[in-house]
Amino acid sequence: MKNQDPYLLTPGPLTTSLETKQAMLRDWGSRDAAFIEINREVRERLVEMSGGGNAFTCVPLQGSGTFAVEAMLATFIPRNGKALILINGAYGHRMATICDYLGRDYVTYETPEDTPPAVEAIDALLEEDPAISHVAIIHCETTSGILNPVREIAAVVARHERRLLVDSMSAFGALEIDVAALPCDALAASSNKCIEGAPGMGFVICRTEVLGAAKGNAHSLSLDLHNQWEAMEATAQWRFTPPTHVVAAFHQALSEHRAEGGVSGRGGRYRRNCDVLMSGMREMGFEPLLPDALQAPIIVTFRMPADPAFVFQNFYDRLAEKGYVIYPGKLTVADSFRVGCIGRIDETVIRGALEAMRETLAEMGVSDGAP
Amino acid sequence: MKNQDPYLLTPGPLTTSLETKQAMLRDWGSRDAAFIEINREVRERLVEMSGGGNAFTCVPLQGSGTFAVEAMLATFIPRNGKALILINGAYGHRMATICDYLGRDYVTYETPEDTPPAVEAIDALLEEDPAISHVAIIHCETTSGILNPVREIAAVVARHERRLLVDSMSAFGALEIDVAALPCDALAASSNKCIEGAPGMGFVICRTEVLGAAKGNAHSLSLDLHNQWEAMEATAQWRFTPPTHVVAAFHQALSEHRAEGGVSGRGGRYRRNCDVLMSGMREMGFEPLLPDALQAPIIVTFRMPADPAFVFQNFYDRLAEKGYVIYPGKLTVADSFRVGCIGRIDETVIRGALEAMRETLAEMGVSDGAP
Repeated sequence: MKNQDPYLLTPGPLTTSLETKQAMLRDWGSRDAAFIEINREVRERLVEMSGGGNAFTCVPLQGSGTFAVEAMLATFIPRNGKALILINGAYGHRMATICDYLGRDYVTYETPEDTPPAVEAIDALLEEDPAISHVAIIHCETTSGILNPVREIAAVVARHERRLLVDSMSAFGALEIDVAALPCDALAASSNKCIEGAPGMGFVICRTEVLGAAKGNAHSLSLDLHNQWEAMEATAQWRFTPPTHVVAAFHQALSEHRAEGGVSGRGGRYRRNCDVLMSGMREMGFEPLLPDALQAPIIVTFRMPADPAFVFQNFYDRLAEKGYVIYPGKLTVADSFRVGCIGRIDETVIRGALEAMRETLAEMGVSDGAP
Repeated sequence: MKNQDPYLLTPGPLTTSLETKQAMLRDWGSRDAAFIEINREVRERLVEMSGGGNAFTCVPLQGSGTFAVEAMLATFIPRNGKALILINGAYGHRMATICDYLGRDYVTYETPEDTPPAVEAIDALLEEDPAISHVAIIHCETTSGILNPVREIAAVVARHERRLLVDSMSAFGALEIDVAALPCDALAASSNKCIEGAPGMGFVICRTEVLGAAKGNAHSLSLDLHNQWEAMEATAQWRFTPPTHVVAAFHQALSEHRAEGGVSGRGGRYRRNCDVLMSGMREMGFEPLLPDALQAPIIVTFRMPADPAFVFQNFYDRLAEKGYVIYPGKLTVADSFRVGCIGRIDETVIRGALEAMRETLAEMGVSDGAP
């Protein structure tokens, strides 16, 4: 059975394998022994992937990735805590919006979308303000595709004896991260990014001891990770109806992730996708926003070509007709669009997308080599 | 292709049609024109089913039904509001727990699990306490399967000029309800009950004018229905990644619901399921908790038989092996178990379940006719 859907070269939802989708062809009872076992395996595997070992646990949560991030911030930052939020894109801003809703005290340190936060600046901010209890960062900010220096930041945060919370939504499963070594208290991600499951659930890898002490922090029953965890530990079931089909698909996606060689195998494929994409796009005259050293192999932002014949909506629609869905930009620093490297796609698909772009530029009357 | 999964005679997740599950075999881009159209049709159809007409809108939400109920309470009860919560089971208690999290003022009026709230008592409570701004009720409380007198309660609430919020999770789509005629401000339900979709999203049918004035009420970014609605009206897209596969399955399930004759057709099948179930169970000597007049055709609670040979876990496991999954009880008033009438099952399936129960009783040495 051939995948006849368009390829989704986006930050998600993504193209998933047929086998992952087929895992949704069954109705599971949420109290079923087999479903409970699926759930246990999913949680265990995610902790294993995160390097968490015995000190960490995984709490899955219904909803999109943002639900998991909100749950993480609400559960881990105590009501009298204060966050330093590092911002260089929309997802950093979203964490600040969440803290506004939560009524948690916070400060931000914002850099332009193409600029990672400076470790020295974080050092100074933590030095200056002893009230800051937590630092919250985005691992890979999909607004631009930038890879933030999580390890260096974690070291500074640890030196100041503050706690680190990581939104690794679009990186977890493809970029190595070790929550114990970093260290961090929690890391949030979702089913439908680099693990290539269907959307509908997120999860937070949590330092168990800290989670255990987090009772009463959360503002919301649905988003209370402590309560979700406590119930799951007690009954091995979800508190509230789980998205059973999505969980089953995620379980299948995790098997495929392992079969591909885990994080390094998955990350390697995305890296090849990214390299082929960037070199092909450069050949056509497209200019990436970021220098190579800051580019995560997740999603690439290209500056909008100056040629007036290049009308993005037209380019987008024609590519979609050819079977490749790209993504508009979200930048404030530059007019741009984005092409994703993640999901069940390989360099052959990327080459097909490049060929389709070449054809589309010709159709639009944009001169090849100088769009 | 035969459905070889066990039949789920539970309050959900339920047995769904193969076609509904097959709708999940495609990866949709969340910005896709076709996906946007699916979303529009789902929202429109749900308002139509609710009798809401032009005065109402539908706001879908990622997560389980509880997420939708929490979002409804948080968005519709202003921060200085006060709720009267009618409780006769676990889901009424859950609304009170949500209000604890929200920090909303509330009082409860609790009746035993087999007893509907008395309309006169509600009348008196509203008369006594003018600070009560909202009344929150459960349409069908699946703890027992009781049908609460929503229409009579709504009339009293309206006479006192207070606002009504309805959790119709397990009833919407099978029991007639008209949000405009009731009247109520909001009604919450989910994809995987009587509409027979896959779990992973809920929705709230909202009085648009009231929703429009609800900005700033919600405690949570993820659960802010006003914000979700505003973004969806502006862009026709979800604010945050939608569970695309679940939405597509729900769209298919809604088509099947319409083809079955809408609420009356769907409710009619469940009523036949319920009648066949109850008469067969009575023949075997099982005693339902509720009198027929209070029994909704959704899920039936049976008292645990006194015969010491009847061990529920044994009964449950043997039935599951035969392909029928039932549900344990959750009652405080009596030891019990439950059998659901909803999902993609008909009276033939119910007769099969009854036959399996009869065999199981014999295997367990429980005497037929007097378990």
